[in-house]
Amino acid sequence: MTLVIINPNSSQTVTDGIDAAVDPLRRFGTPIRCLTLPDGPLGIESQRQADLTIAPMLTLAAAQSDATGYVIACFGDPGLHALRDQTNLPVVGIQEAAVMTALTLGQRFGVIAIMPASIPRHLRAFGAMGVLNRLAADRALDLGVADLSDPDKSLSAMVAIGKRLRDDDGANVLIMGCAGMAQYRDMLEAETGLPVVEPCQAAGAMALGHIALNQSHRKGPK
Amino acid sequence: MTLVIINPNSSQTVTDGIDAAVDPLRRFGTPIRCLTLPDGPLGIESQRQADLTIAPMLTLAAAQSDATGYVIACFGDPGLHALRDQTNLPVVGIQEAAVMTALTLGQRFGVIAIMPASIPRHLRAFGAMGVLNRLAADRALDLGVADLSDPDKSLSAMVAIGKRLRDDDGANVLIMGCAGMAQYRDMLEAETGLPVVEPCQAAGAMALGHIALNQSHRKGPK
Amino acid sequence: MTLVIINPNSSQTVTDGIDAAVDPLRRFGTPIRCLTLPDGPLGIESQRQADLTIAPMLTLAAAQSDATGYVIACFGDPGLHALRDQTNLPVVGIQEAAVMTALTLGQRFGVIAIMPASIPRHLRAFGAMGVLNRLAADRALDLGVADLSDPDKSLSAMVAIGKRLRDDDGANVLIMGCAGMAQYRDMLEAETGLPVVEPCQAAGAMALGHIALNQSHRKGPK
Amino acid sequence: MTLVIINPNSSQTVTDGIDAAVDPLRRFGTPIRCLTLPDGPLGIESQRQADLTIAPMLTLAAAQSDATGYVIACFGDPGLHALRDQTNLPVVGIQEAAVMTALTLGQRFGVIAIMPASIPRHLRAFGAMGVLNRLAADRALDLGVADLSDPDKSLSAMVAIGKRLRDDDGANVLIMGCAGMAQYRDMLEAETGLPVVEPCQAAGAMALGHIALNQSHRKGPK
Amino acid sequence: MTLVIINPNSSQTVTDGIDAAVDPLRRFGTPIRCLTLPDGPLGIESQRQADLTIAPMLTLAAAQSDATGYVIACFGDPGLHALRDQTNLPVVGIQEAAVMTALTLGQRFGVIAIMPASIPRHLRAFGAMGVLNRLAADRALDLGVADLSDPDKSLSAMVAIGKRLRDDDGANVLIMGCAGMAQYRDMLEAETGLPVVEPCQAAGAMALGHIALNQSHRKGPK
Amino acid sequence: MTLVIINPNSSQTVTDGIDAAVDPLRRFGTPIRCLTLPDGPLGIESQRQADLTIAPMLTLAAAQSDATGYVIACFGDPGLHALRDQTNLPVVGIQEAAVMTALTLGQRFGVIAIMPASIPRHLRAFGAMGVLNRLAADRALDLGVADLSDPDKSLSAMVAIGKRLRDDDGANVLIMGCAGMAQYRDMLEAETGLPVVEPCQAAGAMALGHIALNQSHRKGPK
Repeated sequence: MTLVIINPNSSQTVTDGIDAAVDPLRRFGTPIRCLTLPDGPLGIESQRQADLTIAPMLTLAAAQSDATGYVIACFGDPGLHALRDQTNLPVVGIQEAAVMTALTLGQRFGVIAIMPASIPRHLRAFGAMGVLNRLAADRALDLGVADLSDPDKSLSAMVAIGKRLRDDDGANVLIMGCAGMAQYRDMLEAETGLPVVEPCQAAGAMALGHIALNQSHRKGPK
Repeated sequence: MTLVIINPNSSQTVTDGIDAAVDPLRRFGTPIRCLTLPDGPLGIESQRQADLTIAPMLTLAAAQSDATGYVIACFGDPGLHALRDQTNLPVVGIQEAAVMTALTLGQRFGVIAIMPASIPRHLRAFGAMGVLNRLAADRALDLGVADLSDPDKSLSAMVAIGKRLRDDDGANVLIMGCAGMAQYRDMLEAETGLPVVEPCQAAGAMALGHIALNQSHRKGPK
Repeated sequence: MTLVIINPNSSQTVTDGIDAAVDPLRRFGTPIRCLTLPDGPLGIESQRQADLTIAPMLTLAAAQSDATGYVIACFGDPGLHALRDQTNLPVVGIQEAAVMTALTLGQRFGVIAIMPASIPRHLRAFGAMGVLNRLAADRALDLGVADLSDPDKSLSAMVAIGKRLRDDDGANVLIMGCAGMAQYRDMLEAETGLPVVEPCQAAGAMALGHIALNQSHRKGPK
Repeated sequence: MTLVIINPNSSQTVTDGIDAAVDPLRRFGTPIRCLTLPDGPLGIESQRQADLTIAPMLTLAAAQSDATGYVIACFGDPGLHALRDQTNLPVVGIQEAAVMTALTLGQRFGVIAIMPASIPRHLRAFGAMGVLNRLAADRALDLGVADLSDPDKSLSAMVAIGKRLRDDDGANVLIMGCAGMAQYRDMLEAETGLPVVEPCQAAGAMALGHIALNQSHRKGPK
Repeated sequence: MTLVIINPNSSQTVTDGIDAAVDPLRRFGTPIRCLTLPDGPLGIESQRQADLTIAPMLTLAAAQSDATGYVIACFGDPGLHALRDQTNLPVVGIQEAAVMTALTLGQRFGVIAIMPASIPRHLRAFGAMGVLNRLAADRALDLGVADLSDPDKSLSAMVAIGKRLRDDDGANVLIMGCAGMAQYRDMLEAETGLPVVEPCQAAGAMALGHIALNQSHRKGPK
Repeated sequence: MTLVIINPNSSQTVTDGIDAAVDPLRRFGTPIRCLTLPDGPLGIESQRQADLTIAPMLTLAAAQSDATGYVIACFGDPGLHALRDQTNLPVVGIQEAAVMTALTLGQRFGVIAIMPASIPRHLRAFGAMGVLNRLAADRALDLGVADLSDPDKSLSAMVAIGKRLRDDDGANVLIMGCAGMAQYRDMLEAETGLPVVEPCQAAGAMALGHIALNQSHRKGPK
């Protein structure tokens, strides 16, 4: 019995960050295994890149014979519903889980996106989720995925956007709009005074809850 | 360190049912204590009854010195935001948690209400949550709270409403709109083929996740 | 036959202001009595404070044997639905009435809140009312309730927020988000050129209309 | 000082019914004068007919030199915003006022339309008002405007639709979707047990409130 | 067989601009005739002016015996549904067509209005269309209709608003909120890097598609 | 210069039907070429199948060197945004185009789905489009894709659902929720009296309009 978390990009550094982010959930007793998708791009910046990860991700997921649940760890949830078509096990997307978690922590959520080009993608997803009335704003750092490896640049950019989301847009809770920002959560909470949802953590917790409660999207035979 | 679940009505039978419902979550390692509110009514049927539980509930919550988080276990979430004003610890309402969980399990959720009079209350809450675009319908059993103690009547009424929500209203996931229905979850899933969210379970899982991840509605000093 | 307006805080000054605000409605012929809730807090700043006024407010309301209708005069409408559960007489909340009135005066309404902490509470209410598509923005003065007694500070803060709501957020009508601002309505209208809805006035007018038309939330026997 | 209510169709019978409907509001002290639009059609069934009443209605309104406020008494509110462009005096449409009133009387409103062809028109208006989340359903009697003069047919058709709106669609309050149904309000309330909003009454009450409070859509000089 | 485009104001200059704007659509093979409404105002600034064009517009439309479809070329779509009541032929409004086209070109659309007073009118229309979740913002140039004839002033004002809609409000596509801006489309696209929808073009293309596909709002006999 | 329409399933019969459906648009002068995706499934029933067509569809699209625009001809619009990331040419999805077209033909649109399992997929898309307020209902035929080849069964099932959408759900316009239903459009319009949007036609017309007007989702250099 293992919760399998798939990072659909090919960066082991990002996967390692995810693994560290969800570590506090290991005390729940279910093993958690974080996988890198070797066929994924180094970072997912466009819908085209996201969509092209689905086929290899589905194959990788199917090969995890001990899986008792899955998390797809890319903000954008590529292949979320495709994997739900493929398996009866719980499947959680980090974007969806982050939003549902944020909705219990503040009335309006602000999203910190890596790049402006991601925002239309996010808005389509929030529209599909039916939660746009709760969105304060979605604003981009305008740093390349690469720049995220510079901790100082990243953190100061996040704090600046977080404060703008709080003060101008009225956000009461922040969502990190990327799988690779977990290390900054505490500092961002300290600097803004707002709760911050790290999406891999939110998804991991939700998946473990689903597993413990035998809660899945499909109850009949596959 | 204990998760405290407060049943704001005075029925120990309901509290016992809640305790049994969340039992699968005890393997996460955090003790869970379910409390009955002695000053609550036997069952909560009106907004007036719900509102009048808030003052004693806040007192009861404040007295739990070992609490590391709270669940308010009445569908309607009376006092949810009042308790969040009182404490920095995670506070989860079963209605809110049930909805957020259901939104990850199906596109449209159907709600099984105990009585017709509860529906306007639910709709106000779903509007405040901003999720009405995801609601298939909210339909009532039209059984008294008392009749819920007759397992046969209750189950067959729930199955009938569940099938109507599925077939006429297009629900892909069902929410039990009451804290006292947990024993019927498996049978309702079997009869309808839909995932069923029992709200106390959903809230318990979410609260334990919040505790493990140090996730709260307020991050600054109280 | 009397319209009873209950100020759920314990400030007689606020009650006196409400009484003056609704005075132009006395020419409709129905006596209006404004009551202070002795058990209320001096000012209502949190949801917790609001919720705790409900029990004594319900008792106070029940004791008004000559009442032919009620107004609950706190922006936030604490106990609105509880009092509707308790009586068949018309019950109007000043927040609800202010919004419904504003929707007939401009396409987008802006709300002037006393404190930032009130805004999530307002947004939950506007969501429950289903009117968020009409909201321009809800912005806070960031003055303490106490500072409202300094007319100069209050008025200039209101005018500044009113102009921001008009110019940046596109508000065509303003709502005073508090029961204690009535004396500034004319000046705020003059300074901004926008219609301004004072919520106690709006609620009083609506309640008198309901009474004259025998219009209530419930028509069958209690 | 007079509240002028304009019936934009040419039926004096309809105007007489409006006059009787608003009679209980005369005790507020402001004279109310109900006018028939001689250039209007006998009944307004299409958007085309509605739009063609605007020009003569604006002329008729401008000729009422003692007016201190206006009500446009056709469900559909033809010319509502045009008249607001023409005058600074309060202008209330019966459709808008009926909806805003209904929103204070029940969580979901049902509308009884005269003919199916009116429903898209209503839905456009409800969309412009931003209140579709509160609509239970809008259902038509499918009687000609003429048949409304047969009290028995009309009432039984209204009761049937009202019960369907209540039982199938979940309406908690009903709106009569026409200016000529006022005589049936009491019976419809008795038969359905729901509050019923007669739109001319709702608009009259709201207009008198606006007049008493000097509340208009425009506060600067015309 | 002719597509008839009616400019409901009396400015031949505006009509000539519309004619030039839709010229690229003439290669589809259907003749296009652009008409000025002699009884219209020089420019349409208020709802009152818009509504008063409906009667003569309907007459002018009815007189076009070779029409195989209509476009009403005023942003605000005055008489759109009235003309649909009058004819079974395709009738397209430039505002509606511009929005539907923009929704296929970007996730959030920004609207460049001529004057602030138009914005509430636009918002009512977008609400009736049910597309407010896709609106970034609607902002006005605050130039008189007359100033639009000064190309330099107009273009620089449009570019400034277009960049604000893009950068502050998150628009991915722009709509020119007036029938007389077509000549600036290319420059505005070049300056902002965003797709720009000129509403007469969008409506012309849509109308020609409807004609070719025998697609109308009504399929039965008139 | 060619409009390329890609059927992402591998059924040449479906492609032939699409080709016939868009034939009336050939008189606009732009060649239209309809392609079958050899690597696609015989029919697309699940999100998983839809997502797996994206990679080969993108390759096929890139190989069309004479393309001046694209239509993706599967209701569900798989890869719509991915192809927009890949090319600056106009890209139209049949689902999106059908909805935008239907919104100009009736206030509430009804969708005829092939199978119940498609409906959640549709609803996610309509949510992302922000048009749920305009949806009457989405109801399934519950025929297999194969059964669509039996004209009698298909047509009678469509007519039955179309009438239900019209009479019970209030649809004023119908959308065929599949690329392979075009041959039935006329009969369905005749039987229901409602306008019917065939999505390949709607998308073809919109794409040709975009091409003629140089209207694309991206205006800067790729």
